[in-house]
Amino acid sequence: MLVHHLYSGGKDSSLAAWILTRLGYEVKLVTVSFGLLDNWRFAGETAEKLGFEHDVLYLPREILEKAAEIAIRDSHPNNAIQFLHERALEALASLPEVERVSDGTRRDDRVPLLDLPKTRSLEDRFNVAYVRPLLGLGYKTIRELTERLFIVEIRESEELEKADYEVELRHILRENGIDPLTIFPKKHYQSRVMGWKEKEIRARG
Amino acid sequence: MLVHHLYSGGKDSSLAAWILTRLGYEVKLVTVSFGLLDNWRFAGETAEKLGFEHDVLYLPREILEKAAEIAIRDSHPNNAIQFLHERALEALASLPEVERVSDGTRRDDRVPLLDLPKTRSLEDRFNVAYVRPLLGLGYKTIRELTERLFIVEIRESEELEKADYEVELRHILRENGIDPLTIFPKKHYQSRVMGWKEKEIRARG
Repeated sequence: MLVHHLYSGGKDSSLAAWILTRLGYEVKLVTVSFGLLDNWRFAGETAEKLGFEHDVLYLPREILEKAAEIAIRDSHPNNAIQFLHERALEALASLPEVERVSDGTRRDDRVPLLDLPKTRSLEDRFNVAYVRPLLGLGYKTIRELTERLFIVEIRESEELEKADYEVELRHILRENGIDPLTIFPKKHYQSRVMGWKEKEIRARG
Repeated sequence: MLVHHLYSGGKDSSLAAWILTRLGYEVKLVTVSFGLLDNWRFAGETAEKLGFEHDVLYLPREILEKAAEIAIRDSHPNNAIQFLHERALEALASLPEVERVSDGTRRDDRVPLLDLPKTRSLEDRFNVAYVRPLLGLGYKTIRELTERLFIVEIRESEELEKADYEVELRHILRENGIDPLTIFPKKHYQSRVMGWKEKEIRARG
């Protein structure tokens, strides 16, 4: 039972990957890149620290350009992030070897998040199961599990050593002469998963 | 990390209980009864076969009477079942020793299912975390996990050896001279969890 899991290296997608292993799934982590930057490597590093297989899925630059248009139109990143996540799920689900796709989206997220019709449409169009281990968990539960499982580094920084869509989206905005700070809310803290807190907690399979 | 898990003895609430143990939670199964019947015993039997602790939570008969009114008004059981589930979650969450409540509600269920505002309201009013392990899983995923885990007996029967709300709701309808078949859709098959398929799959904790 192999699951292809969209992975940014962050706490949520790491927790979701762990849950999948606890349910008996074999998990392959997949990080999306549009080929502009190699920030997918941060996800690859975290994947290695956690002992997961990791792949990169390259999507066409045109998709990122379209997302940038949406973000500029809205002066806000939410619809652009949602657009990118839907395209990422479709690209992953369309690969012939993929039977199950998964991600770290949460109950309390506004984006990215597929509603029920979009969820069923994804499953039906690509004949896959779409699994979201965190969808039924609130922030308290996610926090208590994350704190138990992971060594997390929190830094005050604008430097984004992350592999989520936001990094390449900010980059292409800058390429187009747009200051990302006019579109993205300013963040002071960011966290990065550095490894398992206790080796035995991993206890895969 | 103790979770109080609303439990009917069916496949969904059994699968959800298993997932909670795989996430490292200690799980206490709780079956609701309105004191009319002792069909909660079927949940107790299944709980024992699966090796879980099990309790009964008695709710006032007035709640069931109100649900019967709703079902009669609607000529359909959905709103009544939803009403009962909300009252059951509130009663469980209001107990002083309860910090986490859980159930087996699924992504593809129409009822019972709390939307996001109701979910947050439950958590805020009673200061609990509400965990739904199956919410991010579709029917394919639930089927493959259930088939791997449980010995299930499927019978063609109107006899309901079950501990869900429907049984006492049908009973009180009959007490009021109403034929439940005028309200509930007719079901030909029912399933009951009889035990673990492989002892080692349980592997709790």
